[in-house]
Amino acid sequence: MRDVLPVEKQTRERVLTQLRATYRRFGFAEIETPAIEPLSRLRSNQGGENESMLFEILRRGLPPEEPVLPADAADLALRYDLTVPLTRYYASHQAELPEVFRALQTGSVWRAERPQKGRFRQFTQVDIDILGESSILAEVDLLVATLTAFADLGMADDVTLLVNDRRTLTELLGAAGFSGDAVPDALIALDKLDKIGADAVAAELVALGAPDNVRGVLDAVLAARDDGQAALAAGELSVPGLGSVSLHDLPEIVGAVRTLLPHARVTLDPSLVRGMGYYTGPIFEVKHAKVGSSVAGGGRYDGVVGKWLGRDVPAAGFSIGFERIIDLVAPEPAAGQRIGLLYPEGVDVTELLGARARLQAEGADVTLVRAPRKPSATFFAGLVEQGLTHVADVTQGHVRPLGG
Amino acid sequence: MRDVLPVEKQTRERVLTQLRATYRRFGFAEIETPAIEPLSRLRSNQGGENESMLFEILRRGLPPEEPVLPADAADLALRYDLTVPLTRYYASHQAELPEVFRALQTGSVWRAERPQKGRFRQFTQVDIDILGESSILAEVDLLVATLTAFADLGMADDVTLLVNDRRTLTELLGAAGFSGDAVPDALIALDKLDKIGADAVAAELVALGAPDNVRGVLDAVLAARDDGQAALAAGELSVPGLGSVSLHDLPEIVGAVRTLLPHARVTLDPSLVRGMGYYTGPIFEVKHAKVGSSVAGGGRYDGVVGKWLGRDVPAAGFSIGFERIIDLVAPEPAAGQRIGLLYPEGVDVTELLGARARLQAEGADVTLVRAPRKPSATFFAGLVEQGLTHVADVTQGHVRPLGG
Repeated sequence: MRDVLPVEKQTRERVLTQLRATYRRFGFAEIETPAIEPLSRLRSNQGGENESMLFEILRRGLPPEEPVLPADAADLALRYDLTVPLTRYYASHQAELPEVFRALQTGSVWRAERPQKGRFRQFTQVDIDILGESSILAEVDLLVATLTAFADLGMADDVTLLVNDRRTLTELLGAAGFSGDAVPDALIALDKLDKIGADAVAAELVALGAPDNVRGVLDAVLAARDDGQAALAAGELSVPGLGSVSLHDLPEIVGAVRTLLPHARVTLDPSLVRGMGYYTGPIFEVKHAKVGSSVAGGGRYDGVVGKWLGRDVPAAGFSIGFERIIDLVAPEPAAGQRIGLLYPEGVDVTELLGARARLQAEGADVTLVRAPRKPSATFFAGLVEQGLTHVADVTQGHVRPLGG
Repeated sequence: MRDVLPVEKQTRERVLTQLRATYRRFGFAEIETPAIEPLSRLRSNQGGENESMLFEILRRGLPPEEPVLPADAADLALRYDLTVPLTRYYASHQAELPEVFRALQTGSVWRAERPQKGRFRQFTQVDIDILGESSILAEVDLLVATLTAFADLGMADDVTLLVNDRRTLTELLGAAGFSGDAVPDALIALDKLDKIGADAVAAELVALGAPDNVRGVLDAVLAARDDGQAALAAGELSVPGLGSVSLHDLPEIVGAVRTLLPHARVTLDPSLVRGMGYYTGPIFEVKHAKVGSSVAGGGRYDGVVGKWLGRDVPAAGFSIGFERIIDLVAPEPAAGQRIGLLYPEGVDVTELLGARARLQAEGADVTLVRAPRKPSATFFAGLVEQGLTHVADVTQGHVRPLGG
């Protein structure tokens, strides 16, 4: 967890405002849920390894003299993502929400990770979700909105959208000899393809019980990744010697996205797994050229809302890794004059604040700056670093550009 | 804790955006601190009764089989206000911050209160603070900025600023026979003046050891409250038979505020106490005519930052009770067209989203709405309730106002 200094905070708020504006154009309605949820709800096997990284909250009113087992000491926890709270929210407020509900959430989530570079224990997520829409309209809508959001942030040329389908993955693993309970472990192995390479993944899969020719499946995955367009055109992935598996709705989804956003880079990546356990259909990820890693991810998760509601509700979502994109957006000076109004120690308060009011009335943001008698170049450089564009002196009055 | 529905969330974001814009004009720089702080820091006797309402966080990695005492089970907690984290932030980042630092914070805080009407266990605070300024420039600046913030929200005519000084209160209690350790309890009694009346407060003070003529002090307080202007003009509060106590900087502070904001309602309230233990000088509160209660409060707290830094740093702040003002701001429709684009089940996705893109290109926010074959009046009323202003039909295309 960390503190945010003023200059970074300005960027964070600018990016959030931009994302909100984009998603509002697409009709997503912003909502808010509490940071805290009952522990039982956050331990319901939806969150994969996130469930083991909960910040749990001590029960209030425990008798101070009575020792308790850690497992009995907590009843609440901080949320580890925005999806589980959303499904609970939808179940609670369904009657007040439209039949197909497009939700936008921006908020902090917490994971008790081991501290390491680039990972925070409190971080912001920006999620859009569509609940109640079973057709590919949901997927296409999420993809077009998110690609537009990246374009509006000036990142259109840096991002590539990767798509896959959990059903395709399952069938692929079926062709490789896995089924049912064995699939999750095989997915975890497959997810390491980029990290450890095809040979090592093949060895892991064989160790998990795959036949020796599993390497052929991996070669088909790699071939389709190199030429995703061919597989999308064919509508299926051929695995030499083992037949072929369907790409389900992906050709239609990708076709619609390309029609609507002709310049977007979209490709099939049959090795894309996405960590969370709850995905049931298409899955997607946005990769950024500069960092080479994912800056957004999502997919269809039809089973999760039903869990709280007692009936199935189709759902799909796309989450932007806000902390990752903050370092990637182009710096952009805020619009308008930000004047540093210099004043000496012991200034008359009314005179000083009156001078400020006059500058504000002309539309400027004004920061009061107590100045030394003879301000140095370092002093003025410090003002530029604070984001100020101009200075004025309360005793002289005229506004001059900083550095000019 | 509670969920926020789309219409309320829109108001919340509009008010936050407005408050940020106002405070930015006054040169306050927004920062962010984590929601979680070490328990030891939140239990350091700064927070009054808030310290007994902490949501504590269970230590990670406790051996599951070993019972622990509740007092040993937690090492972190959720913050109960934004002031304690700010003082820690300033101590950590002083070298990167201007000599006089004007901070804006908007964020959630948590208090494990007994659930009751109008009290939430998670709520938002909007705080401005000035660190490093010992003169009344800090107080005047905070008061003018906060009164302007209320004016910018359209509440100028509804709010009254009450001021007092902790030193005046202490001297007043001294005149009534209290000193040193006895002052805090006497302040708590005095704070109940509006709730239980002067006779009952006098009885409590006598029970705490005041002489019988303490009623004279209360009468002086009540008289000054009724005619704050006379006391401010005199610069002191006379207590018949006991002498008089100084109002310290209040006359100068109020004079400057009135010069800068001639229409603001500002008055002395010598019964104003403010709960928190850390105030050392002027204290203030904004009272709203409609609710009759406080919607913002603050004051000078010179001792708190020094606690972490090892040297004294003057400080003053003003905090807006965001949850209270949300219900009080005038409803204001968002600018621009918000179009519901109606489509039938089974619509062609590319056609639908292409039609949406054309409407968006004209500047509208567009929400997709799956419509029944023959939409009823109730159906359209629901769209108005969602905040939509217009509808268009994907098969016909022209945009018409809702309700028109």
